[in-house]
Amino acid sequence: MRLVSSPDITSAVSRLAGRIVRTPLVESPRLGDSLGLRVLLKAENLQHTGSFKVRGVLNALLARRARGELPAGVATFSAGNHAAATAFGGRALGLPVVVCMPPGAVVTKVEAVRRYGGEIIFTDDLLGTCQSVARERGYAILHPFDDPDVIAGQATVGAELLHQAAEVTPPVDELPPAEPAREPAPVDVVLVPVGGGGLISGVAAAVRAASPSTRVVGVEPVTANAMTYALRLGTPTPLPQRPVSLADGLAAPFAGVHTLAHVRELVDEVVEVPEEAIRPAWWELLDSGKLLVEPSAAVGLAALRHGLVRTRPGETVALVLSGGNVAPASLAGLG
Amino acid sequence: MRLVSSPDITSAVSRLAGRIVRTPLVESPRLGDSLGLRVLLKAENLQHTGSFKVRGVLNALLARRARGELPAGVATFSAGNHAAATAFGGRALGLPVVVCMPPGAVVTKVEAVRRYGGEIIFTDDLLGTCQSVARERGYAILHPFDDPDVIAGQATVGAELLHQAAEVTPPVDELPPAEPAREPAPVDVVLVPVGGGGLISGVAAAVRAASPSTRVVGVEPVTANAMTYALRLGTPTPLPQRPVSLADGLAAPFAGVHTLAHVRELVDEVVEVPEEAIRPAWWELLDSGKLLVEPSAAVGLAALRHGLVRTRPGETVALVLSGGNVAPASLAGLG
Repeated sequence: MRLVSSPDITSAVSRLAGRIVRTPLVESPRLGDSLGLRVLLKAENLQHTGSFKVRGVLNALLARRARGELPAGVATFSAGNHAAATAFGGRALGLPVVVCMPPGAVVTKVEAVRRYGGEIIFTDDLLGTCQSVARERGYAILHPFDDPDVIAGQATVGAELLHQAAEVTPPVDELPPAEPAREPAPVDVVLVPVGGGGLISGVAAAVRAASPSTRVVGVEPVTANAMTYALRLGTPTPLPQRPVSLADGLAAPFAGVHTLAHVRELVDEVVEVPEEAIRPAWWELLDSGKLLVEPSAAVGLAALRHGLVRTRPGETVALVLSGGNVAPASLAGLG
Repeated sequence: MRLVSSPDITSAVSRLAGRIVRTPLVESPRLGDSLGLRVLLKAENLQHTGSFKVRGVLNALLARRARGELPAGVATFSAGNHAAATAFGGRALGLPVVVCMPPGAVVTKVEAVRRYGGEIIFTDDLLGTCQSVARERGYAILHPFDDPDVIAGQATVGAELLHQAAEVTPPVDELPPAEPAREPAPVDVVLVPVGGGGLISGVAAAVRAASPSTRVVGVEPVTANAMTYALRLGTPTPLPQRPVSLADGLAAPFAGVHTLAHVRELVDEVVEVPEEAIRPAWWELLDSGKLLVEPSAAVGLAALRHGLVRTRPGETVALVLSGGNVAPASLAGLG
């Protein structure tokens, strides 16, 4: 299977320029100090629609338009962030959008779909309903992750991150000399949340191409481990039990054919964090990192805190904070 | 009185380069949409020590060192953010630091001073105690705001903000053309929280110098309005009642001689927000803006929400989010 390559990523970066937020890469000296690492946070919670998903959707729609394949409308299925991103992307290109969502979808994410004018069908049979709707209306299905154009769009997170890492102010506990050496700071490890695998596939493709020595590690909750399951069985396979996790954005019931291929080929390792590790990490990103993220975005920090990622003291670790679509009222009583 | 000028600001920018976080200027499409404005957030909550205060402290200490005036130690007085910043700055230059804090100081801020190795004296007589300690130990007093070097350091917030505004992705509800026009985006209004006035003095100096048509508006709680009081009486005068506000960082009991002069000369207007407007704005920055700030940082949004700032639809408004030192547990039950 052909993997997403450098030219695909370059095209995506250029298609998306000026159309997405170049989200900041923020160093957190407090998290870094307490972990004995240099910690960089790629804040996709500040992205349009509140998650990285717009990158994949916009790239896919723009690439199809460039190939003369723009459909009459778009149907998709998602518990949340891809749904909102598709509504946003459809509105931007003037396409009607239908999203099939599970009845238990997080309210913040349902509201986001409506905010961007998407039509919602609540159903337990996400894929089946989506296929019927697409057939009836003559719409194309936009897969939330298992699509090379979507993966190339998500790759722009990795491309930006590496570029920005060279610009980030180094930590200054002691003042550096007045003219600090301006070497580009290497990133030793990138930690990426894994649901269906679109984000990590793209990020790994970008990182492998631009910085081969950087390790790319995927993190998924043990309670929603579709990628680990696919890696173990050698093929994308529906999880035996419906995944339920505080990290609702990672609860994909299966990995993809394309994403599994990328992960096998390009990713160093996928680790599983215990469910109970997610909430404290989420809280820590708020308390010490000063960023409101959704629980899915906190699995990377959870993995570090649980010693699941091999690091050497002082290494630079970038955490991809995948999204911020969470109702802060749900924070009440935590801490 | 000589005001902080362009060369002072240029020197400060150059002294601080690589020593502070170049905090991101983040566009918030959600806040912008709901206000009918373009809203940019200057995220000083992501600064070292969690507030803009390190800029003024480091600039003051480095400027004194350059002039051969570095003292044996530093004494200061502050309810919080300046205290932590002085501890940080002292540690960076190898100077002992004593901070006089009120017994009711916010715990997060007390902890921050200790984190950076500062010695704390709790006292109700901040200025008197600070003067005694400085005399006894031969330390110099670093005023939290009424010092030209401190003001020049805070000015770097304004200089950065204007520079970054030209880089920020424009909002894309409709997709722009593939090659968007790359004109620098002007900032129509900058909203700055006002306590003793150091931040707004610096920001106004930087903005007046680089972008004369940009309005600079100060915002203080009506419950902690030392600057409005000084403007009304024509001279810095202790408030008749001890200021108490959710925006604890703005509760300076008096403005400064230098800061009053800057505000009179360079600031378009200082508005007062009702105390009850602060909490909802703080919440909105978390819920929609995805940033954890301290309540002081939310007064600008509170002023917009209360119609206290004249804006035209579609104008670009930059909010200086002055800090993030708040215990998120205090958020519990809000919303």
